[in-house]
Amino acid sequence: MKQYEMFELEFKGTEPEGSHAEVDLQAEFFVNGNTTSVKGFYAGNGTYKVRFYPAETGTYTYKISGVVNASGTEVCEAPAGHGIVKADGTHFTYADGTPYYPFGTTVYALAHQDDALVEETLASLEKAPFNKVRHCIFPKDYDYNHNDPEYYPFEKKEDGSWDVHHPCFAYWERFEKIIYRMGEMGIETDLILFHPYDRWGFRDMCMEDNLVYLDYLLRRLSAVPYIWWSIANEYDVVFSRKMEEWYDIEQFIVKNDPYSHLLSNHNCIVFYDFARPDITHCCVQTIAMHMTDRWMEQFKKPVVFDECCYEGDIQHEWGNISGKEMTNRFWKACAKGAYATHGETFYSDDEILWWARGGKLKGKSTERIAYLKDIIYSLPSALEQWQEPSSNEESDAALGIDLEQGKEIFQKIFSSNPPVDAANLEWKSAVYNGHAGEDVYLKYYAQQCVAITSINLPEEYTYKIEMIDTWNMTRETLVERASGKTKLKMPGKEGMAVIATRI
Amino acid sequence: MKQYEMFELEFKGTEPEGSHAEVDLQAEFFVNGNTTSVKGFYAGNGTYKVRFYPAETGTYTYKISGVVNASGTEVCEAPAGHGIVKADGTHFTYADGTPYYPFGTTVYALAHQDDALVEETLASLEKAPFNKVRHCIFPKDYDYNHNDPEYYPFEKKEDGSWDVHHPCFAYWERFEKIIYRMGEMGIETDLILFHPYDRWGFRDMCMEDNLVYLDYLLRRLSAVPYIWWSIANEYDVVFSRKMEEWYDIEQFIVKNDPYSHLLSNHNCIVFYDFARPDITHCCVQTIAMHMTDRWMEQFKKPVVFDECCYEGDIQHEWGNISGKEMTNRFWKACAKGAYATHGETFYSDDEILWWARGGKLKGKSTERIAYLKDIIYSLPSALEQWQEPSSNEESDAALGIDLEQGKEIFQKIFSSNPPVDAANLEWKSAVYNGHAGEDVYLKYYAQQCVAITSINLPEEYTYKIEMIDTWNMTRETLVERASGKTKLKMPGKEGMAVIATRI
Repeated sequence: MKQYEMFELEFKGTEPEGSHAEVDLQAEFFVNGNTTSVKGFYAGNGTYKVRFYPAETGTYTYKISGVVNASGTEVCEAPAGHGIVKADGTHFTYADGTPYYPFGTTVYALAHQDDALVEETLASLEKAPFNKVRHCIFPKDYDYNHNDPEYYPFEKKEDGSWDVHHPCFAYWERFEKIIYRMGEMGIETDLILFHPYDRWGFRDMCMEDNLVYLDYLLRRLSAVPYIWWSIANEYDVVFSRKMEEWYDIEQFIVKNDPYSHLLSNHNCIVFYDFARPDITHCCVQTIAMHMTDRWMEQFKKPVVFDECCYEGDIQHEWGNISGKEMTNRFWKACAKGAYATHGETFYSDDEILWWARGGKLKGKSTERIAYLKDIIYSLPSALEQWQEPSSNEESDAALGIDLEQGKEIFQKIFSSNPPVDAANLEWKSAVYNGHAGEDVYLKYYAQQCVAITSINLPEEYTYKIEMIDTWNMTRETLVERASGKTKLKMPGKEGMAVIATRI
Repeated sequence: MKQYEMFELEFKGTEPEGSHAEVDLQAEFFVNGNTTSVKGFYAGNGTYKVRFYPAETGTYTYKISGVVNASGTEVCEAPAGHGIVKADGTHFTYADGTPYYPFGTTVYALAHQDDALVEETLASLEKAPFNKVRHCIFPKDYDYNHNDPEYYPFEKKEDGSWDVHHPCFAYWERFEKIIYRMGEMGIETDLILFHPYDRWGFRDMCMEDNLVYLDYLLRRLSAVPYIWWSIANEYDVVFSRKMEEWYDIEQFIVKNDPYSHLLSNHNCIVFYDFARPDITHCCVQTIAMHMTDRWMEQFKKPVVFDECCYEGDIQHEWGNISGKEMTNRFWKACAKGAYATHGETFYSDDEILWWARGGKLKGKSTERIAYLKDIIYSLPSALEQWQEPSSNEESDAALGIDLEQGKEIFQKIFSSNPPVDAANLEWKSAVYNGHAGEDVYLKYYAQQCVAITSINLPEEYTYKIEMIDTWNMTRETLVERASGKTKLKMPGKEGMAVIATRI
């Protein structure tokens, strides 16, 4: 047993007579005065397993009861990894306190492709910067994504409906292996438990079946450190599901996951209620990166733009942004201390599009995301949004007001603006600035082509100011030593950033 | 006298004893049973003038009364121009019915520069596509725009305050000449009557003085055909002015302009109330071109994006968009049957920036706007927004619904979305499609890089489908003859449009 690594006990027994999902198998793990209760599962072929995630080192004793009765002792050694990722304020850290900054990608039906394609996808991920992959338990049926998988999560009843009490063990074993392989690469699985794009009947299962399915999944996968629960993809267009049922599903997961993995729910149109106490982070589908401010203030949780369109060229507006625009969206999110998720939808005659099925990465944003990731990981701490001290004295003076008056007056005008007009105005006026304490200040100019600009740094410290070209991935010193308000000359093009690092 | 051309009568008299603005001089023009009453003005140096805009041909008689008493007859000949531009549904036409599609630019303090710079600006306009210029009566004081003009609209009182009863005739003569010069080039003056960026005291004049000023201006300039009234630039940040006073100003203009020139009011933050019956068009500062639908439905008036940021590279977010983005905004507006206004803010050491002072055009959007203007003017009629018949059957089927169900269900979900989230969502999902009856269908893809797409044309007619590269200004045939839903292959890059022209 190693701290932060899944520990597994295996027992031989007789095949369960009724449900293969809801088997009578409990375990308790004791260490340093703490007890963790977990449920075991039936793995097929007369094999029962108990999986456990040890959060601390020490000498564990365990007691198994139910269809198997056993007990034992295990010494939990020094960590093999960093442990489960948890939310920490508006950011994430591994269990051991190491920062984790999500730079995800999306391969919805990753595990429902043939072995050759899965291998190709994993090989692509090996070389890519992505440290999180959003993918589904259930197969997906949508444009460019119609293939039948080799295995399904359950066996079928005689009437052709799914028998959630009889998991398809081959399915789960194959699925786990893919998760493990990615875990070894440092990639978190953002596991999508339900989704609307279906022709097999998984979407419309009754709630009773849903909970049996989740029970089995949680027994089997909760001890995997590098896993997050994404209740659904586009929960709000699963028309057979009521809102209360999503809450029931959420609470069932909370009760049956002994380790409190990250938990959120992804929208198509209407955001899930991120204020719910067990929801760990805001998983949003939107391109409104400037809303980060609002959401962080409202929810005090990390904001992950888990779908902000895909780099590609298909007919759908969510699947045809340029590599430049994808890079731009990542920078917008990250500069404000939020995070974003990538995906690719380049049309090809074989209909293998990364976002759905994996394969090869073809876009231009991936290497720029890698470049950004290196920058974010090199910072002394996670970025928080930065309200740069105003430097608009001249323009305010032209209006016949001073800076203080100006704030108050503008506040009043802004608050009189109808909500939709106010929302639209923010698309023009949004700024994407972050800071790591007083050590680093970052301004990302997005679409603004500044030739002249300034940065208003603390007077007390000295900073080196560099200019970053986010597209060409170059970094150039603008000012060797600067303090306070500093004027800067820039090349007047899109996608530029300025970073000031304390000397 | 020529139809649609300003007619001027000049009389010698004695200098007015009191106000030089509110002189007692009226005229009535009679033709074809119609009477038009106008007021004359004092032009300095013992000269009184009466100006008149003849809307129809015929033999006019006129009667002058007040400080001058005179009468006469004038034959009004066939038109010299097309007349005053009027709103016509959500578009504009000249008085003679010729379509006018505004492709404007902005030179706020055009007339407050020295002669050499004004000449340079006019020479630039001569070669440019712009057929409307937004500029101010009052000088402007703002970043890159601090020069004192040679003349001001009024003389000063002994206490240093402005004497609205004593217009500075040199100012008005010079100002008019600039308007006339542009008029001869086919350029409408979108005349800004008030604005907030001031250090001379024009902004904060009392209402009594404002109305004297407007009275003089309207006596002097109403008969100029190529003039629009823009009540203010950024009316809502003139902090000394109450909303009711703007309405009073608006109504004073309506009462004292015998020809009902186009009339609107331009916002900084909060839109003016375009539902007001005398407001002829929506003059908006915003970059939310997709709102065109809403506003046209709400106001049934033309929508002009009279400020949608400027192509340039200065520090302000409203003054540093790329030429590509400016081109994009023009196409977004025009594809939906709206219009946009250009401006340039390229930093230069001499601080002569086009948007404020004129000079040379430096940007990359101007020639693309010219290209777009040629396309729009070549259409058989003005574009109206096009709701392309849906072609999303496949994607809806994956959700387990048909097209009709889908519409209803999505309608319900969309209407449950909070207003700000709904507004933000539209930035992603907006489409920019227009049509000219059943003759032309235009789809502008904006940021969408489609490699595969389709157009859903009427089955009854045959169309030639061309692809337009809005940046490279090329036009290439995709399909020689097409009807109904037609699949298209495109190069998968930004800024592309498709135009289908009925054969």
